[in-house]
Amino acid sequence: VEVLAAVRPENAHQARLLQVLRDAGPHPRASLGDLVSLSRSRLAAELDRLVARGLVDVGGPGASRGGRRSSVVRVAAGTRFLGVDVGATAVRVALTDGELNLLAYRHEPMDVRRGPEAGLRRVVELAGTLGAGPAGVRLAGAGVGLPGPVSVRDGTPVSPPIMPGWHRFPVREVLATELGCPVLVDNDVNIMALGERQAGVARAVDDFLFIKIGTGIGCGIVVRGEVYRGTTGCAGDIGHICVSVDGPVCACGNTGCLEAYFGGAALARDAAAAASAGRSAFLAHRLAEAGTLGPSDVADAADAGDPVARDLVRDGAARIGEVLGGLVSFVNPGLVVVGGRVAGMGHALLAGIRSAVYRRSVPLPAAPPIVLSELGDRAGVVGAARLASDHVFSAA
Amino acid sequence: VEVLAAVRPENAHQARLLQVLRDAGPHPRASLGDLVSLSRSRLAAELDRLVARGLVDVGGPGASRGGRRSSVVRVAAGTRFLGVDVGATAVRVALTDGELNLLAYRHEPMDVRRGPEAGLRRVVELAGTLGAGPAGVRLAGAGVGLPGPVSVRDGTPVSPPIMPGWHRFPVREVLATELGCPVLVDNDVNIMALGERQAGVARAVDDFLFIKIGTGIGCGIVVRGEVYRGTTGCAGDIGHICVSVDGPVCACGNTGCLEAYFGGAALARDAAAAASAGRSAFLAHRLAEAGTLGPSDVADAADAGDPVARDLVRDGAARIGEVLGGLVSFVNPGLVVVGGRVAGMGHALLAGIRSAVYRRSVPLPAAPPIVLSELGDRAGVVGAARLASDHVFSAA
Repeated sequence: VEVLAAVRPENAHQARLLQVLRDAGPHPRASLGDLVSLSRSRLAAELDRLVARGLVDVGGPGASRGGRRSSVVRVAAGTRFLGVDVGATAVRVALTDGELNLLAYRHEPMDVRRGPEAGLRRVVELAGTLGAGPAGVRLAGAGVGLPGPVSVRDGTPVSPPIMPGWHRFPVREVLATELGCPVLVDNDVNIMALGERQAGVARAVDDFLFIKIGTGIGCGIVVRGEVYRGTTGCAGDIGHICVSVDGPVCACGNTGCLEAYFGGAALARDAAAAASAGRSAFLAHRLAEAGTLGPSDVADAADAGDPVARDLVRDGAARIGEVLGGLVSFVNPGLVVVGGRVAGMGHALLAGIRSAVYRRSVPLPAAPPIVLSELGDRAGVVGAARLASDHVFSAA
Repeated sequence: VEVLAAVRPENAHQARLLQVLRDAGPHPRASLGDLVSLSRSRLAAELDRLVARGLVDVGGPGASRGGRRSSVVRVAAGTRFLGVDVGATAVRVALTDGELNLLAYRHEPMDVRRGPEAGLRRVVELAGTLGAGPAGVRLAGAGVGLPGPVSVRDGTPVSPPIMPGWHRFPVREVLATELGCPVLVDNDVNIMALGERQAGVARAVDDFLFIKIGTGIGCGIVVRGEVYRGTTGCAGDIGHICVSVDGPVCACGNTGCLEAYFGGAALARDAAAAASAGRSAFLAHRLAEAGTLGPSDVADAADAGDPVARDLVRDGAARIGEVLGGLVSFVNPGLVVVGGRVAGMGHALLAGIRSAVYRRSVPLPAAPPIVLSELGDRAGVVGAARLASDHVFSAA
């Protein structure tokens, strides 16, 4: 990956030290050698280099009662990463420290269809309000998630269906210049999966699936602890898996795609139809009030006991569960995490998905737990920061 | 993996040298250093050790016209691996050299339901007829594929549905004792995928799917050049993915599983029904002759123009293609290889699968080639030998 020059570790040992300190936090110097399998003298030499180059801080002796006291080693206190999660209808930006703790977080509605210039300008402005960028603190790196297929190598979207004007736009180059740091770009579902692995419910899990149910439906695939992207970067594109050839027409031109049944767009369509046909007083009232309906309206209606909304959630969960059941048989994952805006429907949705998956998984020795995202809205920005740190904390 | 002691490389450099010589064949000594990124002196030292330990041969100067002549390095000429592929209804055994070329190959019908003692005894006898085993040549290692879920770590089948008596049977230990060499055990579909990657159509492909259509239906998943087995070793178990909840009852108890529609067992059932109902003179004649019908009868009937058989193949291909289309969207593989006994139906089957997959893959930037197995019946034994060699040619 070609990005702007940055201070990076000089060898694999230094890279490993930085990654361990990022994930495990500040560590007594005395116990660090065991963690990275380095001799005392080699550890001392590598730490000296990391300190000299500003990547690591070694503090005074830690509080200790009795025995010898060991100084504490940590990722340099001033290290800052930027995590950016561009969704179809919102943008989220976060500033983190070197351990990927969120220091500041902003989000606001944004229509990705306004195009890359407007979108990226707003991302840079939001970074500025968090104190990052040219006039603010120096960033070690930034990660960006986009709601469509991305060439991670090129740092550009590739034929994204819901992002007019973004095809092959040089997102990485533009942001690297504006932010003055290395930038990594990936699909939004992949960074959400990375976020859950970094700081969420999938923390210790090597093989898991992250199902995002937002405007569209996608799947992040983590294999042996790393995001699996497929041969041309499209792995996890499950929104157009065929549920039933006799089903509704999808925006892609096929019939019966999963997204044609469920997801933000299908829910809005079905809710509006129910409201117009007088089948739901709740949804009709909301539609009259706001002029439009979305997944959160259906969630509210279902919560309030509206039978039409409950049916929409139940049917959608069954469709997702049907597809997911097949994927679970295929991947044999240790965990399934459900996230994205529609996942805000919570327990009713999850219960429906679970029952459909487990019903089909009877012959399997071990069906995996199916759980909600723990980081919710913030999974993407944490994962984007992690993506950036994986690059910056690897040997140049 | 715990196996009998064997002469194995002493470090990662020696392991890499052996693997390169296995896959690339005999190599002039002068050009070997570049291939494994070793200095002249280091290469000489590691080769000396490998020769001293009998793992590598260094021959006289190779034929060369002009310039300096370089001696030729190769995996020791006497190196022998055994590859065993136990299917539901047949057993295949092959002896290979250190480059995994087949030196001898035997196969015969065998009913895996006769149990592990009888099955493994026959495997050892067949190995003997190839000159391998206690009384014959010394084996460097043996690989074994079994038609059900396998714990690779434990070397035993785990709850295999079509293998009564095999659950937790110590296949690895028993064969290691009988054959006097390290033994590795895996699922039969995984070894077929490995075989195609070693010497077949998937040779240079890092990410691909191998669909086996035999008595059952399974999928080998190769990710970043390695077989992916999932959290509990069940990855690729696609035979019970739901095609339609309204479909026929499957042996597993669910309805509408892929295997309930297609595969050897479903074909035999449908062919017998057609014959009994007088819908196919060809199949009725075969049934009267042999008392039973199998996939090869359907293949012959389809070849002969029998319309019922053609429908069975066309419908089956459409079902497989429907499921495969979803998996292709999900995995974004570089290639799909179709193998197994039913794949012997050849072009008609493949054409049907392709058309179903490509019809659904329109939104994808790149649908992968879908091709028939190149090694056919021998994919399993080659892959089993490869599995064994990966172990023996890794640092102890």
